[in-house]
Amino acid sequence: MSRIKKINHIAIVVENIEDALGFWRDQLGLELDHVEEVPSQASKVAFLPVGEGEVELVEPTDMASGMGKYLEKRGEGMHHLCIQVEDIEDMLKFLKEKGVRLIDEEPHDLPGRRMAFIHPKAANGVLVELYEIVE
Amino acid sequence: MSRIKKINHIAIVVENIEDALGFWRDQLGLELDHVEEVPSQASKVAFLPVGEGEVELVEPTDMASGMGKYLEKRGEGMHHLCIQVEDIEDMLKFLKEKGVRLIDEEPHDLPGRRMAFIHPKAANGVLVELYEIVE
Repeated sequence: MSRIKKINHIAIVVENIEDALGFWRDQLGLELDHVEEVPSQASKVAFLPVGEGEVELVEPTDMASGMGKYLEKRGEGMHHLCIQVEDIEDMLKFLKEKGVRLIDEEPHDLPGRRMAFIHPKAANGVLVELYEIVE
Repeated sequence: MSRIKKINHIAIVVENIEDALGFWRDQLGLELDHVEEVPSQASKVAFLPVGEGEVELVEPTDMASGMGKYLEKRGEGMHHLCIQVEDIEDMLKFLKEKGVRLIDEEPHDLPGRRMAFIHPKAANGVLVELYEIVE
């Protein structure tokens, strides 16, 4: 049985969502589903579906947050890759057994989803987010 | 009619594909479809399907190439986001009309696909590749 379902989204950190929509929606032609404040991550997020996945534009609302510091240091660009799994607890247990360095040893529960990050040092410099969608 | 079909792949630049498979295949659990030499891009690429898309691990085979210099300067990490479109000529025409800065004004023809890059300065620091799959 595969633990992996699909690429859920690619998150792109941007300075300003309205400006960024000028490219992703108005020029590239993606649909904007909605924009949401995500206070737990000190950011505002625009969700743009693409096939079975999404592009997410993330604008930090607090430059002292992790996302804010990332933007300040590295500039705009791809921030993380989110892989959707069948069962996040099973996946984290499996990764821990393999000795993979994790940011979150246990999943965080958010509305509609459970999530955890793998450390980029374990994944060739890529910040990998794991998602389990909870109906 | 939407011009956009799906996220075709995320490309990750790595120092060594065999080492990188230690995480992406053996720990995360993605399937390895195959590894291919891509001389036109001075690299070796591992293709790992995920849902309707793929993760591609790209190892530069020539450090003087664009990909090699990128790795040297920025280190391992996400390199580009590939969006699959219905008709790449139509898409490039549309983007040119909108004044979007492109790396490739015309598509490159490769076996099974036609591709072109949008300039990252047009896309919030993201190198966006466009693909049309040719049967």
